[in-house]
Amino acid sequence: MTDVHLARGYRFAAVHCGVRPDRDRRDLALVVSDMPAAAAGVFTQNRVCAAPVIICRERLPASGARGFIVCAGNANACTGEQGLIDARRMAELAAAAVGCRPEQMLVASTGIIGRPLPMDAIAAGIPQAAAALSPAVNGLDDVAHAICTTDTRIKVASRLLEVDGGEVRITGFAKGAAMIGPNMATMLAFVLTDAVVEPAELHRTLKEAADQSFNCISVEGHTSTNDTALLLANGASGQPAEPHKFAASVSEVCTDLARAIAADAEGADHLITLEVEGLPSDEDARRVAKAIADSPLVKTAIYGADPNWGRIVSAAGFAGVPFAEQDVSLWLGDLPLYRDGAPLPFDAATASAYLKQNREVTMRLRFAGGPGRCTFWTCDLTPEYIRLNADYTT
Amino acid sequence: MTDVHLARGYRFAAVHCGVRPDRDRRDLALVVSDMPAAAAGVFTQNRVCAAPVIICRERLPASGARGFIVCAGNANACTGEQGLIDARRMAELAAAAVGCRPEQMLVASTGIIGRPLPMDAIAAGIPQAAAALSPAVNGLDDVAHAICTTDTRIKVASRLLEVDGGEVRITGFAKGAAMIGPNMATMLAFVLTDAVVEPAELHRTLKEAADQSFNCISVEGHTSTNDTALLLANGASGQPAEPHKFAASVSEVCTDLARAIAADAEGADHLITLEVEGLPSDEDARRVAKAIADSPLVKTAIYGADPNWGRIVSAAGFAGVPFAEQDVSLWLGDLPLYRDGAPLPFDAATASAYLKQNREVTMRLRFAGGPGRCTFWTCDLTPEYIRLNADYTT
Repeated sequence: MTDVHLARGYRFAAVHCGVRPDRDRRDLALVVSDMPAAAAGVFTQNRVCAAPVIICRERLPASGARGFIVCAGNANACTGEQGLIDARRMAELAAAAVGCRPEQMLVASTGIIGRPLPMDAIAAGIPQAAAALSPAVNGLDDVAHAICTTDTRIKVASRLLEVDGGEVRITGFAKGAAMIGPNMATMLAFVLTDAVVEPAELHRTLKEAADQSFNCISVEGHTSTNDTALLLANGASGQPAEPHKFAASVSEVCTDLARAIAADAEGADHLITLEVEGLPSDEDARRVAKAIADSPLVKTAIYGADPNWGRIVSAAGFAGVPFAEQDVSLWLGDLPLYRDGAPLPFDAATASAYLKQNREVTMRLRFAGGPGRCTFWTCDLTPEYIRLNADYTT
Repeated sequence: MTDVHLARGYRFAAVHCGVRPDRDRRDLALVVSDMPAAAAGVFTQNRVCAAPVIICRERLPASGARGFIVCAGNANACTGEQGLIDARRMAELAAAAVGCRPEQMLVASTGIIGRPLPMDAIAAGIPQAAAALSPAVNGLDDVAHAICTTDTRIKVASRLLEVDGGEVRITGFAKGAAMIGPNMATMLAFVLTDAVVEPAELHRTLKEAADQSFNCISVEGHTSTNDTALLLANGASGQPAEPHKFAASVSEVCTDLARAIAADAEGADHLITLEVEGLPSDEDARRVAKAIADSPLVKTAIYGADPNWGRIVSAAGFAGVPFAEQDVSLWLGDLPLYRDGAPLPFDAATASAYLKQNREVTMRLRFAGGPGRCTFWTCDLTPEYIRLNADYTT
């Protein structure tokens, strides 16, 4: 964490308040901007969405945000009207503790679905968190830990961007993608910058970055009720950033976080990068990549170091994207397996060794249908995933 | 097999010819109608489809079909131009062996993707099969075994339908759904009747039956390159059947086979029946059911006997079908877990015991959006599924 480029003008704190039983794990995180910040968010497309997602959607994009409060261990999803009351109350209490208006505070949750929030514990924890706020990197480290559920490590990424008058910094942190734990939900990602950015541009920047990062990862394809990515820009650097460079840097931070989420998915042995190109649109390429990424047959083959290219090509075929079979070519790493719709002779032992010896592997699928392309990240499917998600009783 | 209602005028044979290495397993099946039969087919929607699927699509519906030849162990998919030549040759050889024109013979395959058919072995096997053709139930039994790949048991279903002038019989057999084996593909189903039916009506009947049966099952959601369902009507009974009664009986046979496929999916511990109702259309209900059925999180929860209803409701939410959360209710067996968008108190031990003690379990999801409904069958996801699909090297 010593090499992180920490956006200026933010303070961080995380405490254990009792949302989850393990007293050694922080479960309530507070992030506050010293000054009102532009803020944007993108959220789950699930029809069943958690109360904090509804609250954030109402409030964003905004120009006067002061921060966000996150609880881990309870998703506050499928909790009906009470869930909305509780999510608003969380924001109110955090706002009161840091001295801003309730609507300046955003809120997120991750954890068990369908249980009411333990509001007494949260109400007691918020002032403790507010009292502990720190601008130091240790505070960020605490927050990055607090939001984790079954993640095995924190995910933090940052960029320093040189601008005419100096520099701006972009700092992101996230927790594991997909509904990754026993009864747990959610991908959460937060990106902070000290650049000066208007809310509308901030929203556009986040939307584009998320489309190429968080929307291009999959663990098992089960869209959570709570997915949330927030981007705050407090202008503490006093510097506006050149929009294209800024967007590229935000996108890099989001991509680093997305890759880290796929690599740290439950039980994962392999990080799989899918490069799909040559379809009519980027969205077509994304649909093909997602069909491959979500196929348990592809995922178990990679786990078993089996270069079973028929599963990959056939998964592309049911993505709902039109293409001609004779336009498909496939590489596993640098090894061509299938070209223009016909199998190539290849050394199965070499292909299997590639999968056995590398923790990160790449598949490239080329079509002949246009300029659309996508890079997508996923993981393999292992017995450990099943153990984690089955050996549990609600 | 003694209680099967065997459609008259059909003969059956299966031999081992060498498509698969195990000499104790038959791998080539031939079914012949004594007289020209009306024939219809429905096939995989995968853009990457096997050569025999292309051949059958060209030939159906038809009025003069004489039978079909099936090889198991090789899918003849992703095999380029050579695959088409080989599939046509298979049909030609079978036609010659039984004395009909090549285009009267249909063809299907299941097995490894991307390898050329062993045509010498198949060419040697076809006359042997033709010589062994038998109208007895033992012949059907041999054929039902021959088409299996990793199925642990054969799937046969039949109905006897009383008609004015006597009776007609409907006999179906199938092999495992989804891409269920190490590098294996395919659901195959064949339904034979001795009723008198025109090809156009036969096609309509099969299409409707398949939509409510084979299109309502999922093992892991990976659509095969080879899925094929054929329906032959040779009129050997001399009786036309009342169309609605006939359609209902064909649908029952297909549903029996579809359920059997889901119940015998690789590694499956549970047959899960999903009842979805109250959406604008049946297709909406099917999409919701399929999203739930394909979710590894739902499937691992059932395997672990965890009544984790949040996973079920949230899977419905990302099916792409609009609904309001407060319109959703959920039952596990007879136990209500969620009503009108709010969780109900329930005894988790009772719910878990229901999943532990029953090999067949039911979930019912009710919406308030219309008359659309669907019954869908799937299975749980177990470590055995991963073992079967990972412990293999191409």
